[in-house]
Amino acid sequence: MSRIAEHWPQAVVDFDRGARIGLEEAVYCANKQPAQIEGVLTQHESRSHPCLLTRLSPQQFNALAEGWRSRLDYDPISRTAIFLDGRPCGVDPQVAVVSGGSSDAPVCGETVRTLAFHGVASTRVEDVGVAGLWRLMDRLEDIRRHPVVIAVAGMEGALFSVLGGLVGGVVIAVPSSVGYGVAAAGDLSLRSALASCAPGIVTVNIDNGYGAACAALRVLGLNGARSG
Amino acid sequence: MSRIAEHWPQAVVDFDRGARIGLEEAVYCANKQPAQIEGVLTQHESRSHPCLLTRLSPQQFNALAEGWRSRLDYDPISRTAIFLDGRPCGVDPQVAVVSGGSSDAPVCGETVRTLAFHGVASTRVEDVGVAGLWRLMDRLEDIRRHPVVIAVAGMEGALFSVLGGLVGGVVIAVPSSVGYGVAAAGDLSLRSALASCAPGIVTVNIDNGYGAACAALRVLGLNGARSG
Amino acid sequence: MSRIAEHWPQAVVDFDRGARIGLEEAVYCANKQPAQIEGVLTQHESRSHPCLLTRLSPQQFNALAEGWRSRLDYDPISRTAIFLDGRPCGVDPQVAVVSGGSSDAPVCGETVRTLAFHGVASTRVEDVGVAGLWRLMDRLEDIRRHPVVIAVAGMEGALFSVLGGLVGGVVIAVPSSVGYGVAAAGDLSLRSALASCAPGIVTVNIDNGYGAACAALRVLGLNGARSG
Amino acid sequence: MSRIAEHWPQAVVDFDRGARIGLEEAVYCANKQPAQIEGVLTQHESRSHPCLLTRLSPQQFNALAEGWRSRLDYDPISRTAIFLDGRPCGVDPQVAVVSGGSSDAPVCGETVRTLAFHGVASTRVEDVGVAGLWRLMDRLEDIRRHPVVIAVAGMEGALFSVLGGLVGGVVIAVPSSVGYGVAAAGDLSLRSALASCAPGIVTVNIDNGYGAACAALRVLGLNGARSG
Amino acid sequence: MSRIAEHWPQAVVDFDRGARIGLEEAVYCANKQPAQIEGVLTQHESRSHPCLLTRLSPQQFNALAEGWRSRLDYDPISRTAIFLDGRPCGVDPQVAVVSGGSSDAPVCGETVRTLAFHGVASTRVEDVGVAGLWRLMDRLEDIRRHPVVIAVAGMEGALFSVLGGLVGGVVIAVPSSVGYGVAAAGDLSLRSALASCAPGIVTVNIDNGYGAACAALRVLGLNGARSG
Amino acid sequence: MSRIAEHWPQAVVDFDRGARIGLEEAVYCANKQPAQIEGVLTQHESRSHPCLLTRLSPQQFNALAEGWRSRLDYDPISRTAIFLDGRPCGVDPQVAVVSGGSSDAPVCGETVRTLAFHGVASTRVEDVGVAGLWRLMDRLEDIRRHPVVIAVAGMEGALFSVLGGLVGGVVIAVPSSVGYGVAAAGDLSLRSALASCAPGIVTVNIDNGYGAACAALRVLGLNGARSG
Amino acid sequence: MSRIAEHWPQAVVDFDRGARIGLEEAVYCANKQPAQIEGVLTQHESRSHPCLLTRLSPQQFNALAEGWRSRLDYDPISRTAIFLDGRPCGVDPQVAVVSGGSSDAPVCGETVRTLAFHGVASTRVEDVGVAGLWRLMDRLEDIRRHPVVIAVAGMEGALFSVLGGLVGGVVIAVPSSVGYGVAAAGDLSLRSALASCAPGIVTVNIDNGYGAACAALRVLGLNGARSG
Amino acid sequence: MSRIAEHWPQAVVDFDRGARIGLEEAVYCANKQPAQIEGVLTQHESRSHPCLLTRLSPQQFNALAEGWRSRLDYDPISRTAIFLDGRPCGVDPQVAVVSGGSSDAPVCGETVRTLAFHGVASTRVEDVGVAGLWRLMDRLEDIRRHPVVIAVAGMEGALFSVLGGLVGGVVIAVPSSVGYGVAAAGDLSLRSALASCAPGIVTVNIDNGYGAACAALRVLGLNGARSG
Repeated sequence: MSRIAEHWPQAVVDFDRGARIGLEEAVYCANKQPAQIEGVLTQHESRSHPCLLTRLSPQQFNALAEGWRSRLDYDPISRTAIFLDGRPCGVDPQVAVVSGGSSDAPVCGETVRTLAFHGVASTRVEDVGVAGLWRLMDRLEDIRRHPVVIAVAGMEGALFSVLGGLVGGVVIAVPSSVGYGVAAAGDLSLRSALASCAPGIVTVNIDNGYGAACAALRVLGLNGARSG
Repeated sequence: MSRIAEHWPQAVVDFDRGARIGLEEAVYCANKQPAQIEGVLTQHESRSHPCLLTRLSPQQFNALAEGWRSRLDYDPISRTAIFLDGRPCGVDPQVAVVSGGSSDAPVCGETVRTLAFHGVASTRVEDVGVAGLWRLMDRLEDIRRHPVVIAVAGMEGALFSVLGGLVGGVVIAVPSSVGYGVAAAGDLSLRSALASCAPGIVTVNIDNGYGAACAALRVLGLNGARSG
Repeated sequence: MSRIAEHWPQAVVDFDRGARIGLEEAVYCANKQPAQIEGVLTQHESRSHPCLLTRLSPQQFNALAEGWRSRLDYDPISRTAIFLDGRPCGVDPQVAVVSGGSSDAPVCGETVRTLAFHGVASTRVEDVGVAGLWRLMDRLEDIRRHPVVIAVAGMEGALFSVLGGLVGGVVIAVPSSVGYGVAAAGDLSLRSALASCAPGIVTVNIDNGYGAACAALRVLGLNGARSG
Repeated sequence: MSRIAEHWPQAVVDFDRGARIGLEEAVYCANKQPAQIEGVLTQHESRSHPCLLTRLSPQQFNALAEGWRSRLDYDPISRTAIFLDGRPCGVDPQVAVVSGGSSDAPVCGETVRTLAFHGVASTRVEDVGVAGLWRLMDRLEDIRRHPVVIAVAGMEGALFSVLGGLVGGVVIAVPSSVGYGVAAAGDLSLRSALASCAPGIVTVNIDNGYGAACAALRVLGLNGARSG
Repeated sequence: MSRIAEHWPQAVVDFDRGARIGLEEAVYCANKQPAQIEGVLTQHESRSHPCLLTRLSPQQFNALAEGWRSRLDYDPISRTAIFLDGRPCGVDPQVAVVSGGSSDAPVCGETVRTLAFHGVASTRVEDVGVAGLWRLMDRLEDIRRHPVVIAVAGMEGALFSVLGGLVGGVVIAVPSSVGYGVAAAGDLSLRSALASCAPGIVTVNIDNGYGAACAALRVLGLNGARSG
Repeated sequence: MSRIAEHWPQAVVDFDRGARIGLEEAVYCANKQPAQIEGVLTQHESRSHPCLLTRLSPQQFNALAEGWRSRLDYDPISRTAIFLDGRPCGVDPQVAVVSGGSSDAPVCGETVRTLAFHGVASTRVEDVGVAGLWRLMDRLEDIRRHPVVIAVAGMEGALFSVLGGLVGGVVIAVPSSVGYGVAAAGDLSLRSALASCAPGIVTVNIDNGYGAACAALRVLGLNGARSG
Repeated sequence: MSRIAEHWPQAVVDFDRGARIGLEEAVYCANKQPAQIEGVLTQHESRSHPCLLTRLSPQQFNALAEGWRSRLDYDPISRTAIFLDGRPCGVDPQVAVVSGGSSDAPVCGETVRTLAFHGVASTRVEDVGVAGLWRLMDRLEDIRRHPVVIAVAGMEGALFSVLGGLVGGVVIAVPSSVGYGVAAAGDLSLRSALASCAPGIVTVNIDNGYGAACAALRVLGLNGARSG
Repeated sequence: MSRIAEHWPQAVVDFDRGARIGLEEAVYCANKQPAQIEGVLTQHESRSHPCLLTRLSPQQFNALAEGWRSRLDYDPISRTAIFLDGRPCGVDPQVAVVSGGSSDAPVCGETVRTLAFHGVASTRVEDVGVAGLWRLMDRLEDIRRHPVVIAVAGMEGALFSVLGGLVGGVVIAVPSSVGYGVAAAGDLSLRSALASCAPGIVTVNIDNGYGAACAALRVLGLNGARSG
């Protein structure tokens, strides 16, 4: 008997974004209903436009219609899905994804999968936090080979400063929400990245692996946007 | 009669940093005494090593011995000084420094001067905040020509999102401590940069023009550190 | 065996409010028990007084007695219910409800339904965030036709400043709790609205679509309260 | 000997703003140098464009050249100055400016002077905080006669809720930074306005009398922007 | 096979407290296990010492052994239980418990039950928030008859200031965690009580009905502790 | 040449407050101009109404006209002044003012002087913080003789809990802004008072000695307001 | 069909830590998957290296394979498990673990079990908060016998200051997340420990019983690392 | 004409503290008046009791009577003074004081001077922050020779974690208020110390060199308090 028919609004997808700035709009699925997600997929299908979905929980994935589920390349750890293949992936990894602890794996995964969707291969160097400094030192030469380093760390985020003082390439910090007490929710790690005593480190939002990957793509110029 | 002779400690300058990661250590002068600053300059002089000083207030500059003052290239707006020439500056500007308001000028200046010290020319595009969107649109083509854009904004930092949606190059946000009430001290602008709806924007600490310039140098690979 | 008989207290409904300031008291249902809600409905029924319920979750709605459920115009997205028809709705929309993303739909819905309850029609313009500026520009002429614009946005809330610089009517910002990390819970978007560089934007509490609608009614003078 | 000539940048004044949204850009002077302020005045003079300056401290005013000082209508309490007359002021006050305490006078003054610059007269009702409720009640009928009420209060901001429950016109809250301890800097009063139990109150930034006046102008439609 | 036998420690009940300061120790049950609660009850039983339990959720109550449950006077709204009768209750109410909204009922209940456990009757005046000021005014004479007024309010807590300006007895504010957005979790209401413009209001922790009742007992001197 | 004559508004003194709730309005002088303060004094003089001024700094006091200065009973430590004698002071102290450290003296003084203005004598017990528990224990019997104890403490505020567990009378905590680092500005001490494990402690705003004294007057019923 | 095989990364255990600093790496299990935990156990098994697991919830423990569960010494209250026996435990307790309330038991347990894993016995003195000061005084002589005292307290943390003023040994404060309202989540207790008026108290993160035990081991020199 | 003679209260010095817990009470001079400081010195003189003064600014020192000034061993960098010699200082340094930057010198000085007052020598290792990791590594063997390491660092405090992972002795972190933007006032460094991924680090309040020294004295047992 509702006088005003309510519905979830049709998304206005920014299909033009790839042409404009070389990065595809990703669908951020947190709090989205199955009908909303399927609506966006339908729009992409009708244009044969590949699509990246982030923050898609297993519960949300399982609530999609089987027809959609079977066509998604879904990874439950990073909670990402890819619809229609993205760009073909390069062979040489150009980004090193370095993490402080194994609990940072979901954020690393979101980063790696976003890069792959845009055709960029990466190297994972995980669980090398500075409490045991040798773990990082053992891998340093390998890390230095990549023009871009994405560092993921929670707790006090000391990894960012140590790495920034040893590596001359681009260092993008992704604070993760790993920790408890004063480190709860990633704010401490975020602020450590911003106030790092090592020069020229840049930062994205807490747990924002997608954003770090996009920043790397801007740096690599693989988004076709740079002419300088 | 003090049993323990107190003195300001001798700074341990990281002269090796340029060789290691391609960025020179800058001397952050806030709260430093004249004797401390002169001690650092003396160390640089004995090695003929150029030196960049940041956050050097006019009061601090005037408290230095005349012998030092006359040999510093000092700019009171950006509160930076250069001792012994840095690298020769390139001709083509590779970085656009874009600001929301004219009160952001000290931060823009610190950015521009740090780049110049490392030999990189830049273009200033100031006072183009989004309350009058035409101001930014008028300059958009010019901005797009640069592979790196450093955006400086205080208050609510909406400039970051608009710029990030229109430009495909690297966008580095520098939140400035311009504003009052809920925008006091730059924290709001910082968080707006981090949570921007435009993909792939990266951020540095509040008012950290030096850090943004260093990040740009990492991106441009002019620090000689990249091999990828 | 309780010595003190405990019960939820009878609500003291402000039935006089409509006559006094032209706005009906709405029943804010968060954390209310079914018996409390039914008690309020009973009071309205005995006076044939229409009633608006907000923040009524589907769980709460389903816990009401069937006799009440069947007489409520309930919308699960906006979590609002209307009991007994409100004022007849005007034909010309006087309010544009503009949102940054499709996840803002529940707040938009609460706004639109509150307006309708008071007899005011509105136009929805959703998912037009500034990361793809063309989406907003495409709808600008339509938006400008309304004397009041209610803007709903989460994350960094850049929509408020861009809109405020382009539209001369009344702009009421509703920060939404959409976002994560530093944008969690809407506080960032709220502060962006308050510190906006565009002049004369006003703000209500986070997710407060009901309050924005009431403010619009005050502006439109349709609450019969203005004599100036 | 500076290789890079530093200067404060020329402001890019949004002269078009009046035509676009009916509100003139004001010059926010906090932290601006005399040369910057005089540069803006020069731009206005060359176009015979009236100009409003806000947050201009007596120290800043006295540092301007005498030629400029003598041509400014300066008020030290509200720290505002008007250059070249604004619009002629109407006779009937359309806005009531109500404050909780006499320490709120600077904010009230900024509000009243901004309205006058745009040609709108107002009524001041000051020092009527709710600790002595009779003070407000004595003036209630007078307040109700105005279509817009701007309420200024610091400390706990209870005035907003009491006023909002008694007045049916538009109520714009301006939290002021009056108070100490937990009320320091206006944040408490701001949040009280936003969370008020009275419906439809809207809020601007702390101490933002200018913004409240602009909002009132949007409401009154005297900015020529509304067509609805 | 645990080398260290782990167990919840035996509580060290402060049975002496009543004699020392006239207030009985209450058992704060949040996060306590059934075995812990039953252990405390056993200690009280062996001394025939009455006991008040607070924050005992229905889930916790139901997890107790039937033998204990049947001997507890349990109230699920206030989440309090009384074991063995407390002091006989006086006839004349000496405390008025006044609340802003019906959602404050759990806190009011904890207050009233704690007072009753110590033998003090009280009057409940609920849902009289200041958005409809007549509701409070209608009850003012009744409220004034009590030497102590305990005021419970969430959201912006304007009730405290209005009441404190109208009543000359002791006013104890209990901020409640009712509200959302900027009023979430009671901190705003707490700060409004502390910064109230009405003189001599005192405050306890958020939702601390037990503490407010204890403070009232100290004031009334019914705890036998005063000699002045 | 100001079109709008600006002035500090005439204060609307709540002379009726004493009759209504038994407490006189005090003039909070922080940020007030000499002319404002003298205006209030003039109003009191014309009615022969005694007046208490708080937060009157030596600078402000010295800026008053000599005619006013000579008639004020001014104390620079507590920054209070009394104009025209208040009520005659009783002989038996009814309030103990207990402090943790000697730096709390200004707050203690504001408390003692406010009580004296209303005719109540008090006992000062200072510098008895719990780091040396014997200091408090030595004075405990004396403290217990007073029906009301006002406790003033900064830093971590442990004094409140220890005192509250040993004294059965009314305990009013006044957090002071003494401390540094995490204890800066009194917020920590405030929260310690509110969350104290000792039952029935009540609290006022940081440094609010005036408010604590008013609360004591409400408790003692010397304000003539209680009939219960 | 995932192009990128996702998996939880293999942990890089710091087996060398014991030799380097005398403390074994513990496995922090919060948010870890069963497969991750079992992977770490497998690594320890292959080296016959004992292992301590912390923050292992009963749900997580029960999700491990039976083969692992039966070989773990698991304690559900402290949520710790020991795999392969640690060092043999000494006879004389060298650490007193003192708590304010019985709800602190999980943190006490984590402390005691970590010490035992490293071969150090301890004495538990629980539920001796300062609201009933006699409880602590009764045990003071016993506490003083230990060279290290670990104090665990939530709420306002007054225990730390009282203890620190009475005991001359090492006092390590562990703030616990016990409390509500302004004491929620342990931040208040943490800050009370840091700002304590008693000299020389040191602090670890909220609820960090493991860290406090490690600090005690460093103090006792039982980690074999000290040569001074 | 003041009816109540106001004075700064006589301090109640805890002369017994040395005997009780082996640490002398220090006089924290921030905000203290000359008369207060001289009063405390007089009390110490009459007992020939040595005295340590902390946070004594040069302004405060110069305001003391010459008779006192000449007898104080004052150090302006650490803002400490010693009255009457403390204990004779040992020869072997037992504490290493390690700092991240030369701006941490005042805190290092307060630490070193407090240790010396109690008879303990220390080694200073300054300006060895982790941005140039070699600076710390060069000094590591020397640092490891001390049973206690006091680490002082501002900004992001990464030094604490790196040091804690490399050193097996006691590590006491002192966060310093060096930094700007998100690192302002030391809170970030404090939280990094507390959340460090290196085990067993303990922390004191921001800039609290005195407290760290006292903690070291407790650890070394040189305060005569340990019997374990």
